[in-house]
Amino acid sequence: MVGRDPERTDRAARRLGWQESTTDWRRTVERDDIDVIDICTPGDTHAEIALAALAAGKHVLCEKPLADTLDEAERMASAARAASDRGIRSMTGFTYRRVPALKLARMLIADGRIGQVRHVRAQYLQDWLADPAVPMSWRLERERAGSGALGDIGSHIVDLAQYLTGERLTGVSALLDTFVTERPLPGGMGTGTVTVDDAAVFTSRLEGGALTVFEATRCATGRKNALRIEINGDRGSVAFDFEDMNVLHVLDGAVSSATAGFRRVLATEPEHPYVAAWWPPGHGLGYEHGFTHQVVDLVDAIARNTDPEPSFTDALQVQRVLHAVEHSAAHDARWVLVTAPTR
Amino acid sequence: MVGRDPERTDRAARRLGWQESTTDWRRTVERDDIDVIDICTPGDTHAEIALAALAAGKHVLCEKPLADTLDEAERMASAARAASDRGIRSMTGFTYRRVPALKLARMLIADGRIGQVRHVRAQYLQDWLADPAVPMSWRLERERAGSGALGDIGSHIVDLAQYLTGERLTGVSALLDTFVTERPLPGGMGTGTVTVDDAAVFTSRLEGGALTVFEATRCATGRKNALRIEINGDRGSVAFDFEDMNVLHVLDGAVSSATAGFRRVLATEPEHPYVAAWWPPGHGLGYEHGFTHQVVDLVDAIARNTDPEPSFTDALQVQRVLHAVEHSAAHDARWVLVTAPTR
Amino acid sequence: MVGRDPERTDRAARRLGWQESTTDWRRTVERDDIDVIDICTPGDTHAEIALAALAAGKHVLCEKPLADTLDEAERMASAARAASDRGIRSMTGFTYRRVPALKLARMLIADGRIGQVRHVRAQYLQDWLADPAVPMSWRLERERAGSGALGDIGSHIVDLAQYLTGERLTGVSALLDTFVTERPLPGGMGTGTVTVDDAAVFTSRLEGGALTVFEATRCATGRKNALRIEINGDRGSVAFDFEDMNVLHVLDGAVSSATAGFRRVLATEPEHPYVAAWWPPGHGLGYEHGFTHQVVDLVDAIARNTDPEPSFTDALQVQRVLHAVEHSAAHDARWVLVTAPTR
Amino acid sequence: MVGRDPERTDRAARRLGWQESTTDWRRTVERDDIDVIDICTPGDTHAEIALAALAAGKHVLCEKPLADTLDEAERMASAARAASDRGIRSMTGFTYRRVPALKLARMLIADGRIGQVRHVRAQYLQDWLADPAVPMSWRLERERAGSGALGDIGSHIVDLAQYLTGERLTGVSALLDTFVTERPLPGGMGTGTVTVDDAAVFTSRLEGGALTVFEATRCATGRKNALRIEINGDRGSVAFDFEDMNVLHVLDGAVSSATAGFRRVLATEPEHPYVAAWWPPGHGLGYEHGFTHQVVDLVDAIARNTDPEPSFTDALQVQRVLHAVEHSAAHDARWVLVTAPTR
Repeated sequence: MVGRDPERTDRAARRLGWQESTTDWRRTVERDDIDVIDICTPGDTHAEIALAALAAGKHVLCEKPLADTLDEAERMASAARAASDRGIRSMTGFTYRRVPALKLARMLIADGRIGQVRHVRAQYLQDWLADPAVPMSWRLERERAGSGALGDIGSHIVDLAQYLTGERLTGVSALLDTFVTERPLPGGMGTGTVTVDDAAVFTSRLEGGALTVFEATRCATGRKNALRIEINGDRGSVAFDFEDMNVLHVLDGAVSSATAGFRRVLATEPEHPYVAAWWPPGHGLGYEHGFTHQVVDLVDAIARNTDPEPSFTDALQVQRVLHAVEHSAAHDARWVLVTAPTR
Repeated sequence: MVGRDPERTDRAARRLGWQESTTDWRRTVERDDIDVIDICTPGDTHAEIALAALAAGKHVLCEKPLADTLDEAERMASAARAASDRGIRSMTGFTYRRVPALKLARMLIADGRIGQVRHVRAQYLQDWLADPAVPMSWRLERERAGSGALGDIGSHIVDLAQYLTGERLTGVSALLDTFVTERPLPGGMGTGTVTVDDAAVFTSRLEGGALTVFEATRCATGRKNALRIEINGDRGSVAFDFEDMNVLHVLDGAVSSATAGFRRVLATEPEHPYVAAWWPPGHGLGYEHGFTHQVVDLVDAIARNTDPEPSFTDALQVQRVLHAVEHSAAHDARWVLVTAPTR
Repeated sequence: MVGRDPERTDRAARRLGWQESTTDWRRTVERDDIDVIDICTPGDTHAEIALAALAAGKHVLCEKPLADTLDEAERMASAARAASDRGIRSMTGFTYRRVPALKLARMLIADGRIGQVRHVRAQYLQDWLADPAVPMSWRLERERAGSGALGDIGSHIVDLAQYLTGERLTGVSALLDTFVTERPLPGGMGTGTVTVDDAAVFTSRLEGGALTVFEATRCATGRKNALRIEINGDRGSVAFDFEDMNVLHVLDGAVSSATAGFRRVLATEPEHPYVAAWWPPGHGLGYEHGFTHQVVDLVDAIARNTDPEPSFTDALQVQRVLHAVEHSAAHDARWVLVTAPTR
Repeated sequence: MVGRDPERTDRAARRLGWQESTTDWRRTVERDDIDVIDICTPGDTHAEIALAALAAGKHVLCEKPLADTLDEAERMASAARAASDRGIRSMTGFTYRRVPALKLARMLIADGRIGQVRHVRAQYLQDWLADPAVPMSWRLERERAGSGALGDIGSHIVDLAQYLTGERLTGVSALLDTFVTERPLPGGMGTGTVTVDDAAVFTSRLEGGALTVFEATRCATGRKNALRIEINGDRGSVAFDFEDMNVLHVLDGAVSSATAGFRRVLATEPEHPYVAAWWPPGHGLGYEHGFTHQVVDLVDAIARNTDPEPSFTDALQVQRVLHAVEHSAAHDARWVLVTAPTR
C-alpha cells in the first residue's frame, strides 16, 4: 500500500491487512511481485502514476474521473490502448456500472426492450456542502480535484448515460455555480476559497437524438447519495435511484394497457448480474459490492486476456463531456460540441 | 355555454346543465346577465376573447398558457391591469397552484422554512405522444396551439417554479425536439405534419441565483401526468409528484440529524390549504379539486374586490420564459435573458 | 333532506341545494315524489328506516355497517330480498368497492390472474383517537354506533376481502381493545366512558383455505386513512393502499423472472373501471368519487331492473363476521364460525 | 470448518480461506486453539453442539431459531447462563437486530420517542414456496427444521417485536397452514411430504397491552424478503421494510401538524448505529452487514467480559412464543399463554 504520509499509510496498511506500506509509488509500480496498480489518489496525480505503471507493464485500475485535464486523459487513453496491444489491461473505476440493477438496465436496453432512446434524465444529488460551516478540503481545490460536483459525481451520471444507452453525448449547454465561496480552514483559523463548482446543470443530446438533462450537486438538502437516472425509449423505460439501490423500475411498452405500469424489479435474483454469487432473493447488496464486482471483472479480464470495461478511452469520452461542460459554462451556456475520441 | 359547433355545444350544454348554448362568443361577452367569462379555447383565440370580455366589463378566467404569442400576452396583461383599476378581475388557469400540497409548499417557502433557494428541478412528464400512431390534433399545430409540450405543460412547471419560490427566472438555455414529425390524420387518410415540440428541456436561473432544470415532454413512456418539482434551499427542501398528488415531501433542516429525513406530509388535514372544506384526514382529493379551488378563489376575489392570483401579468412572465426558451432553442441553446414585465 | 335538528338540517339543505328539509323521516319515506332513500344516520336507526322505506316501495341505499345488531341485519336482508322480487332495489354503502384501483383488483382476481388465493392481509389504520384529549362522540358509544373501529372501518376491509376474492370468511379468532376508556365530554365538563373498541385484530380463513389477517384501529399514530389490502395467490398478487388511492400494485406470475416485480398500475386510464367518465390518464380521482360511482351504479341498476351490489345480504355477511369477531374477542380469542347467510 | 460431507466441507473451507476442515465437531469444540464456535447447522443439532461447546468452555454463536424443541432451548439457555458465570459468552443469530435502521428504531423506542406502544404489525413475507414445483429440502421436514415459515422467519419478527419494544409477548392465537403438502424429491423421482407449515398467522399481546399481529409465509407471491414491522405508540411510530433496508420511517408526535408525517430516515449517517465504520451518507449497506455487526459485537463482548445480546434466554423466550403458536394452531386458534422464562 502506498500513501503520502508514512505513519498514516502504515497504520492503514496494518488495519487493512497489507504486508507492506511505503510512500514511494515510483518504486512500487516497478516491483516484479506486483501485477496490478489501483490508483485512488486525488485527480492531479492519476496521469503520472498510470503512465508509469502502464510503462512498467502493470495492469491499472484508475479512479474516476480519469484525470484533471483533458490533455492528461488523452495521454492516459492513448497509453492504455498501446498497453492493451502488449496484453496490459486498464480499467476506470466507474463502479456504479456494476450495481446489479444498473447492469440489468444496460442489458434490457441493449436487448432493445425500451426501443429508441428519447430521454435521459440523470441527477446525482448530495448535500454535504449545503452547510457553509463545512470546512475546506482537497476536493474543493481546483488544483487538486480538477473540478467539484461536476467531476466527482457528475462524471458518474455522464458515464452511466452513455454506458446504459450505448450512445455518446454529442454536445452540451451548461451552468456551473459555487454557492459557498469561502469556507473555514480545517484547522479552525481563517477561511479558504472554494475554487470548484458546488453544482452543475446541463442539457445534452445523445447520438441518436435523445434529449438529456443532467444535474450534479452537493447542495441538494436532504439528498445523501441520490444518483438517479431515468431513460425513456419509444417502447419502454427504466428508472433507478441509488438511495434504493437494489431496485430497477422497468416499464415494458408491450404489456396490455389495463395493467401497464412500472415494474419494481428487486434485482436480487440469481438471474440478475453478479447476484448468483451473493445472497438469496430479497437479501440486498450495499455500496461496496460495486467495488467487489469491479475487482472480480478486472481479474477475470486479465485472466481471459480481454480488455475490461470501462476503458480509459471510455473515461476519456466522459472527460470530453466534462470539458465541454466547463467550456459551455464559461461561455454563457453556449452549445459546445463534444469531440469524439479518435478510436 | 359557447362553442364552435352548434350541435356539439348544445349537447355538452345539456349534459352539463347549462341553460343556453351558442356559437357567438362576441354577443355572449356582452350580455348583461353574465358576469364572468371562462376562456377554455385553443390558445390562438385567448387574446381576442379576453380583450373583448374585459372591455365589456366582465371578469375573466383564462386558460393557460395565456396566449400563443408574446405580443398577445403583453396586450392581455396590459388590458387586465387597466381593467383592475375599474374593479374588473382577471385570473389565469394555472390550477396546480391550488393543489393543497403545492400551496402548502408555497406557504412553507414563503415562511423561510427551506431558507435560500439553490435548486429547482421540475419535470412535467406525459407519454401520450410516445406512440407514432397517435393521430394529429389541434394541439400539434403551431398555428392553433402556439407550441407543444413547452406551452401546454412546460408552462405549468415554469409558473410553479416562480410561484413556489417567489422569484422570477432570469434567463434560459434550451433544447426543443419533435421526435415524431408526421402523424396520421384523424380521419384515417394521409398524414399531417407536427409543427410543435414533443419535448423541451432547459436550464435556467432564478433571481436569487438558484440553478434550475426544466423538462416537459409528452414522450416519457410510462409517465402519465408526472408533474414533479423539487426545491432545495440551504435549510430544507420540498418535493412533489402529481402522480401522488396529496403528498408533499418536506425536509426540515432544523431537525437533529439521527432522525432527519424527508417527511411524507399527507396534505389532507384541516390545517392544509383548502382541505377544511372537504373530507376527513387521509381522504384524498383528485385532479378537479384544483379547478374548484380556482373558481372559489376567483369568486371570493370578486366579492372582496381584490385581484386574484395568478394574474395575467404573472402569466405574461411565464410567457416571456416560454418565448426565451423558443428563442434559445432556435439559436443553438444560447443563453437568452427573460425580460421582466414592466409592472 | 331529513335530519334530527330542524335548524341544522335546514341550513345543510340550503347549503347543499335541497328544495326541502324536515325532521320527519317516516313521512318522507312515504312521499310519492321520492323514489330513493339514502340512509346516512347512526347505525341504531338503519333497520327501522330501511324496513319502512322498503315497505313503502322505495329503493334504499344504506350506509355501512348495515346495522348495529345481527338480528337487525338479518331482518333488513330478508326485507331487501323480498322487495327485490317486487322490483325494489337496495344497496349498502361500501364505497371502497368503487375506487377504480380496487375494482380493477376485483376484475383481475375474477379473471384468475392471481390464481388460487392463499393470503389476504388487510389493515384499516387511522389515528384520530390516538390522543386521549379527543372528546367523546356518538361513534364512541356502543348504543349508537354498535361498535368502534371494528364496525366503522373494520367492516370495510372485511367486505373488501370477501368482495375482491369472491370468497366468504368462514371463522375468526379476534382481540379487541379500548386503549383510552375515559374521554372528555364535548362540552368540556367531566368525562364519558368509551364503550366501543379502539382497535380490532383478527385472523380468519376464506372458504378456499386462504389465511387472512385483519387489523382495524383508530390509534395507529401517523396513519390517516390507510386502508391497505394485499392478496397473494399462487400465480400473482395485488396490493393497495388508500393513501395512494389511484394506484394498484400488480404482480403477474407469468412474466419471466429477470424483470418480474410488482407493477405500479396508475388506475387512471380509460380502460380502468369508471375512469372513462373522468379525466385524462394520470389525473387522479379523490375520495368522493367512490360515492359518485355508487350513485351512478344504483341509478343504473334501478333503470335496468337489476339488483345492485353490494346487497343487504352481502352486508349481512359482513355483519356476521363482525359478530363472530366480537364473540371471539369476548371468549379469549377462541375460534368462532361465521354462519353463512341462508340465501 | 466443520461439515457433514468431507469433500464438500473441504471445498468450502478452501474457497473461504479456512486452514483446516473436518467432519468431527466433537473434537473441534474441544480444541485448545479454538475460542468460539459458530453453529450454523439445521436446528435438530443446535442443542447437542452448543451444550458440548459451552461445556468445553467455548464461546458460542448459535443460529436461530435456538432449537427445534422447547426442552432443548430450555437446556441451552440454562447452560448458557451457567457458562456466563464462568466468563463464557453465548449469543443467538437474530441478525436483523443489527440492521442499522432497526437498531435505530430500538434506540428511539427505548428513549420514549413513540411513547406507550399500542400496536405492532409484523410480517415476514417470502415467496420461494409459492410454486408447487419447488422440490423438497431439509427445511420442509419437521424432524430437521422443527417448523417451517414459523421457525425460520417467524422467529425473526417475534424476536424483533420483543426486542424493539422491550416487552414480552404474553399470549397468542394462531393459525398455521401448509398449502402444498407434496413436493417432488430433489433427485426427480417421486414426491415427499411436507411436514412443516408454509405460513403462520397469529395475534398476540405485549406485556404493556399492545395488540400485535404477526404473519410469516413463504407463499406471498412477489415478496422476496419483506420483513416488515410497524410499531405505533401513543406519541409516534416507526416502520421498516427489509426490501428497503437502509430506511426507517419515523413519525414523531411532537411535530406541529401542518408538516407532520413519517420521516424517511436514511440510516446511513455516522450518527446511526454501526454506520460510522462504513461508507459516507447515502451509500447503503446490504444483507451481510448484519452478520458482520454480529461478529464485531460478539468479539467486543468477549473482550469486555460482558454478555452479548440476544442471549440464549432471549432466544428461549422466542422459542416459547413459537411453541405457544404451534399449540394454539393445533387447538383451533385458542388463546395460549406464553410462559415467561424463569430468569
